[in-house]
Amino acid sequence: MLDTPIIIVNFKLYSQASGKNAIALAKHLEEAALESGKNVAIAVNSLDFDNVKREVNIPVLLQHVDAVGFGAHTGRINLELAKEHGVDGILINHSERRLKISDIEYLVSKAKELGIKTIVCTNNPRVSGAIAALEPNFIAMEPPELIGGDISVSKARPEAITETIEVVKRVKDVPVLVGAGVKSGEDVRKAIELGAKGVLVASGITKAKNPKEATLDLISGLV
Amino acid sequence: MLDTPIIIVNFKLYSQASGKNAIALAKHLEEAALESGKNVAIAVNSLDFDNVKREVNIPVLLQHVDAVGFGAHTGRINLELAKEHGVDGILINHSERRLKISDIEYLVSKAKELGIKTIVCTNNPRVSGAIAALEPNFIAMEPPELIGGDISVSKARPEAITETIEVVKRVKDVPVLVGAGVKSGEDVRKAIELGAKGVLVASGITKAKNPKEATLDLISGLV
Amino acid sequence: MLDTPIIIVNFKLYSQASGKNAIALAKHLEEAALESGKNVAIAVNSLDFDNVKREVNIPVLLQHVDAVGFGAHTGRINLELAKEHGVDGILINHSERRLKISDIEYLVSKAKELGIKTIVCTNNPRVSGAIAALEPNFIAMEPPELIGGDISVSKARPEAITETIEVVKRVKDVPVLVGAGVKSGEDVRKAIELGAKGVLVASGITKAKNPKEATLDLISGLV
Amino acid sequence: MLDTPIIIVNFKLYSQASGKNAIALAKHLEEAALESGKNVAIAVNSLDFDNVKREVNIPVLLQHVDAVGFGAHTGRINLELAKEHGVDGILINHSERRLKISDIEYLVSKAKELGIKTIVCTNNPRVSGAIAALEPNFIAMEPPELIGGDISVSKARPEAITETIEVVKRVKDVPVLVGAGVKSGEDVRKAIELGAKGVLVASGITKAKNPKEATLDLISGLV
Repeated sequence: MLDTPIIIVNFKLYSQASGKNAIALAKHLEEAALESGKNVAIAVNSLDFDNVKREVNIPVLLQHVDAVGFGAHTGRINLELAKEHGVDGILINHSERRLKISDIEYLVSKAKELGIKTIVCTNNPRVSGAIAALEPNFIAMEPPELIGGDISVSKARPEAITETIEVVKRVKDVPVLVGAGVKSGEDVRKAIELGAKGVLVASGITKAKNPKEATLDLISGLV
Repeated sequence: MLDTPIIIVNFKLYSQASGKNAIALAKHLEEAALESGKNVAIAVNSLDFDNVKREVNIPVLLQHVDAVGFGAHTGRINLELAKEHGVDGILINHSERRLKISDIEYLVSKAKELGIKTIVCTNNPRVSGAIAALEPNFIAMEPPELIGGDISVSKARPEAITETIEVVKRVKDVPVLVGAGVKSGEDVRKAIELGAKGVLVASGITKAKNPKEATLDLISGLV
Repeated sequence: MLDTPIIIVNFKLYSQASGKNAIALAKHLEEAALESGKNVAIAVNSLDFDNVKREVNIPVLLQHVDAVGFGAHTGRINLELAKEHGVDGILINHSERRLKISDIEYLVSKAKELGIKTIVCTNNPRVSGAIAALEPNFIAMEPPELIGGDISVSKARPEAITETIEVVKRVKDVPVLVGAGVKSGEDVRKAIELGAKGVLVASGITKAKNPKEATLDLISGLV
Repeated sequence: MLDTPIIIVNFKLYSQASGKNAIALAKHLEEAALESGKNVAIAVNSLDFDNVKREVNIPVLLQHVDAVGFGAHTGRINLELAKEHGVDGILINHSERRLKISDIEYLVSKAKELGIKTIVCTNNPRVSGAIAALEPNFIAMEPPELIGGDISVSKARPEAITETIEVVKRVKDVPVLVGAGVKSGEDVRKAIELGAKGVLVASGITKAKNPKEATLDLISGLV
């Protein structure tokens, strides 16, 4: 279930998290979830989705879905089709796949109608406030300059976390996740202390020598 | 001044509103503003901006500015440069130039810092609510399916106007303009009655046989 | 095999050609291919790809692949991953998914390296000539104004077909397919007579009451 | 005139080359052109275009023009309007403003019809070959990884220059300019020796302490 507190691992298109590696990695993360009894979800690419979904019992999200219905759309997938494939939720507006505001609104509204959970990524507190008005299930705030880096948002920009939570709460009480540079249980613990309901991570897990251990370390911060 | 109630005329890239025609049209609209004593502003393309700005004393907006600072950006213009050229305000996120939410936030924040007024276009009540959280100077809601058509938003979708105003007010009290298909003083009067602070029009004026008369007709609805 | 003459059916995101319907439709087309002994290939969306590929023995293409390698790319798929999934070929630059020229070049070059066939879509003879210089396996010329319509390119724009073939041949002898509005064996026969090596179709098959019969009708024109 | 050999200076959106600074810089470059008797052209942003064009007698290009005609296009400019403003030529598909192949073809064809010169930027030899088939007035090849850097294309990738010229010549004999990292007369001389007909530069001139001297230095390589 997409319940908080939660660790969401974005597989991106890392070679360590694509194709056969995506299935292996997903199983390691499922083990970490089972052993710890905590919530762990993963976001995979569309081509690998079915293969991964079939193999694990943790929530599997799509990293992107297009804001279209059925029809003459070449090279696109939509929410209705994602639902038929059993998707648990979707990432929307990730830093590496920014969307127009009209498309974000369409996706959040349509997903709610279809019973699909939505995590809308944002780049700062003000954008988070705007997104809160759309009432997605989660907002994941990631300062772009820290994504993929070595210093976590918890350490580098703690005030961005608290400000995001305040600004969001003023508009609508949507749970806030944070991300960017998150690598350790300490980073997670700090984020939770600041009011976050979980973290969105990528390279910290996908590139770890032992992804299961790395995930258990992150989970240790979910206090 | 960009005061309400207001008629904002988007020149788009209509031949009747570009190049020398842009200057002539701007003067007709200035006359209508002077005769009526009401607020009329115009939004022109970047190439015509200086020529039009030099010739009239009504507010001249840019139809689009890119969300970048100074630097290695080819084929872009920014707010700092627009300010040097004396811009009064900018349209952001028009239906024909939709932007990413992160870019809308950047433009609204930077424009406020520079003293440039912002009109953010939206396509429905929910998107309007999200934009309200960014606190632009105006929100201009236009149902895309009615833009350029013969039936005005006031007649075809009055409930979209009232709903937009309600949703926006709940987040932040930003003045709401409406647009799409607006052609007559009656359309404007209806919009104002529903709570709008003005209208955003284009073909209704740019393609009118007598643009000054057509503008005076719209103005008659600004009661 | 992607041999000529060929009928390529683009499933787009039509409800009749997505999810479970994609598999059923693919089987009908496979039957038509087997009965006629002619070349029929299909292009499906990324989420349905594995399911369809597993069920049929005709070539299955992807409708779009992103021009990136492995790495920090959220919501993207690439050629290396498509190859691991057993893709036979890819559509590039379809009218509903136009690409930058630098991305088209990357995809054609990388696909050649990986042994994946490429069909680059173009909108007119001149663009076809430019694409020919990149030496994809096929060029599929479709006048945008005829796509999804009732009049076929063979009838409405025969001169565009002959001109495309001439312009392409002058640069590099890449086989030319044509598409847009193709609905009957007569349309196909005409295209072949004009020098095309096959057709790219979509709604003519995906929306047919009896897709197998409709495909056999098209095939009858592959003389 | 846009004759070869030529130095084209892209002002980009550098603060040193925007607004009032654009006019001052343009005059320095005009002096360098007059003193040396060589061809120097400049590419400026749309907002500054008229101001710069009015002040100098060297060719003034636009950095980007949209691939649309007149009509309901907000925040766009087109070739017809650029012609009315007296444009001498346009950059198309710069690395910082990449375009779809269908838009490049439209712009090159329409510009030819209107008597506007075209310089299409490309990122490698193969893309250059494709563009040659469209017969623009010039192709400007710039390896993206060297743009804005300290090592010139002449030194870092001489083989990319010769290969581009060969590939282009095989398709159509369009004059080839090169760019990226060009900073000295020596860089220019090397490019010309390799067969280039000129260079496209930006930061090397716009950020120079003495832009006129820096341009005269570049010009010294136009042997």
